[in-house]
Amino acid sequence: MSIREDVTRMKSVAAELASSSIELRNKALKMVAENLRKNADKIFKANEIDIANANANGVQESVLKRLKFDNHKLEDVIDGINQLIGLEDPVGKVTLNRELDEGLVLKRVTCPIGIIGVIFEARPDALVQIASLCIKSGNCAILKGGKETAESNRCLFGVIREAIVEAGLPEICLIQAEAHSEIDELLKCDGLVDLLIPRGSNAFVQYIMNNTKIPVMGHADGICHIFIDKDADLAKAIPIVVDAKTQYSAACNAVETVLVHSEIAAKALPVLVRALNEAKVVVNADAYTTNVYNAYKEDSDVEVHVIEDDAYNVEYLRYELGIKIVENVDEAIAHINKFGSHHTDSIITENQATADKFQNMVDSAGVYHNASTRFADGFRYGFGAEVGISTSKIHARGPVGLEGLVTYKYKLTGNGQIVTDYASGIKTFKHKDLD
Amino acid sequence: MSIREDVTRMKSVAAELASSSIELRNKALKMVAENLRKNADKIFKANEIDIANANANGVQESVLKRLKFDNHKLEDVIDGINQLIGLEDPVGKVTLNRELDEGLVLKRVTCPIGIIGVIFEARPDALVQIASLCIKSGNCAILKGGKETAESNRCLFGVIREAIVEAGLPEICLIQAEAHSEIDELLKCDGLVDLLIPRGSNAFVQYIMNNTKIPVMGHADGICHIFIDKDADLAKAIPIVVDAKTQYSAACNAVETVLVHSEIAAKALPVLVRALNEAKVVVNADAYTTNVYNAYKEDSDVEVHVIEDDAYNVEYLRYELGIKIVENVDEAIAHINKFGSHHTDSIITENQATADKFQNMVDSAGVYHNASTRFADGFRYGFGAEVGISTSKIHARGPVGLEGLVTYKYKLTGNGQIVTDYASGIKTFKHKDLD
Repeated sequence: MSIREDVTRMKSVAAELASSSIELRNKALKMVAENLRKNADKIFKANEIDIANANANGVQESVLKRLKFDNHKLEDVIDGINQLIGLEDPVGKVTLNRELDEGLVLKRVTCPIGIIGVIFEARPDALVQIASLCIKSGNCAILKGGKETAESNRCLFGVIREAIVEAGLPEICLIQAEAHSEIDELLKCDGLVDLLIPRGSNAFVQYIMNNTKIPVMGHADGICHIFIDKDADLAKAIPIVVDAKTQYSAACNAVETVLVHSEIAAKALPVLVRALNEAKVVVNADAYTTNVYNAYKEDSDVEVHVIEDDAYNVEYLRYELGIKIVENVDEAIAHINKFGSHHTDSIITENQATADKFQNMVDSAGVYHNASTRFADGFRYGFGAEVGISTSKIHARGPVGLEGLVTYKYKLTGNGQIVTDYASGIKTFKHKDLD
Repeated sequence: MSIREDVTRMKSVAAELASSSIELRNKALKMVAENLRKNADKIFKANEIDIANANANGVQESVLKRLKFDNHKLEDVIDGINQLIGLEDPVGKVTLNRELDEGLVLKRVTCPIGIIGVIFEARPDALVQIASLCIKSGNCAILKGGKETAESNRCLFGVIREAIVEAGLPEICLIQAEAHSEIDELLKCDGLVDLLIPRGSNAFVQYIMNNTKIPVMGHADGICHIFIDKDADLAKAIPIVVDAKTQYSAACNAVETVLVHSEIAAKALPVLVRALNEAKVVVNADAYTTNVYNAYKEDSDVEVHVIEDDAYNVEYLRYELGIKIVENVDEAIAHINKFGSHHTDSIITENQATADKFQNMVDSAGVYHNASTRFADGFRYGFGAEVGISTSKIHARGPVGLEGLVTYKYKLTGNGQIVTDYASGIKTFKHKDLD
């Protein structure tokens, strides 16, 4: 059975799922949680095969941690499902209720997007989270996980599907794709699939974006900035920079460039570079910033590596970052809007007016004040889970939870109204908002 | 100056416009309305040149009506601007206000999308409406109108730009593109332009969608349906069908296919076909529907034209439509979801449960009950104006007014919080919604 045939069958049940009750969808989630716990041993065994294969292939320790699905991870995803059950139904919310004229009422009502394709990295917990978000929001989903967790994914997917079928949802509302070739099949399903959410490397996401007519939500780059303003409290700034770089350096919301206000550079640079060096972070800087640093560093301070003036568009994803002196907040904003990826950027300042300006004018999904960029995350925002982080400005922006998985429709109810009567002037619109 | 250079300059003022006050944006709108009235004679003269050229080229009467910009149209657009001034600011609305932890507050705040390119048909009033919507919503815009109104557009654009500059908005926040070749330049401005809104023929919109990496909002097809249920009141159904087809047959929200419940076909078809014939509408039907019609028509009734079973994917845009008997509401829903374009579809029934099912399960931007599909329009919905109608399910759906021209950003304000403290368990999230 090809992906296209599967998705065509899926399309025939999408309306049924979209109009299912929240009681049924929550019941399905509850049964998914129960079935996961019931099949824990089977799941752990499948995961052990993946881990053994990964070890045989010499996979890095940091990657292994992500592949692992143990009891701790199981309890985490079950907690996540229970949180989702507790969240209110994102479907059926009336966001506009307007009497256009007597007996002619317009309502805008949220509804599922329909069919969503999610392609995600090798992380078994991601499969459970994404499937749960789609069930809760009434969306059909095609799930394609990384090949390094093929055994775990197959097992988890079977357990989830068994539960939702038992709960009474259509079997075909969730599909798992396993072969890499199926991704290209999926990309050609425009007109059937409503949205693609790719997660993974910059190159992979770019490939998806460039090879489909289906709308794509997500992010390629994550070039996040921290601007240390002249009115910054360095006791806040330094720990925030170190956290944003080292707490999880491979994440898209890790900081890649630190901008420093010229008036504070002489004081801040030596402290900043020393702290980063102690945290084992390699520091790069353009020639001007390097010169200033060298002029003010203490004897014991470390060297920075000189980079070109325009080399601030790098997503390091490791213990390395760029620092740069900027004239003032305006240059910081201009730099971020030019070199950034509209993901998450933070200002460190005690000056509220400067913070306001930064947060209003930086064109990013997350604009922070005195906080680490690493907070950009669906769990930390309290969304229960996220399907991804969007740097697009269309539809959903930032961490995408349930609200990003619904759209709306306009329901108009009349008793025989025709437009001719309004065009001719026999009747006129009242446009009275109700409630 | 190329479009790319213009848009690059525009990008440098986008943040300024995005953070401008609603007072300034409303003042600019007020001055636009005043300047339009002050320059009425100049505008009418420019429009007369377009009309003379159109006459010389033998343009159809119906098109001429759209090209015309007279005192009546001027008052209409000034009314529209005044309505827009009265609407609340779509920018700066707080849609989420949550304390993640003590002293760490997350707000989701609406903001302009940024830079929008709108390519629209030859209608001078459209230029004014689109420019006004963009000013009100704080978006920069590149406007490209149809070549048949080149003189009117140039004049109107000059008058609008003069007013916004005098009001204090950046001159470059609105650009007019005049040459057709500039459309292809615009399509290549991904990374600079945030959204394209093409309006016009199906083929033109398809061309835009297939030739750019910029997100596109709008619709290609408008294949709208009316389903006459077995419980329909024909005294409502017939006038609604005639209105939906003939009130303005070239519109995207005109009906193209009428589905008739099998149990009511014998009674409904003769009345329906006769009414359409009297309104000069050509009626097409598949073989089965034709046979049923022929078996029940009266002697005086007219012929229908037989079409293939799968020829219901036609957007006629003229006095012509297809009719088809369906078994029941389920087949009607399945037909619409398969052959429709997710634009606007209506059910005629006195049965509330059937109407609910139809409105829940038809996957379209507008799902109507006992009303003409022609109501799908920003003015009729009370949005003041529209930049277009979207059949996409991503971002905005249906008629797009101010709310479709904004996105949001997450503003997080802390006092030095780092993620390490939450990952290690020293601190835990509270996730307490404020207000």
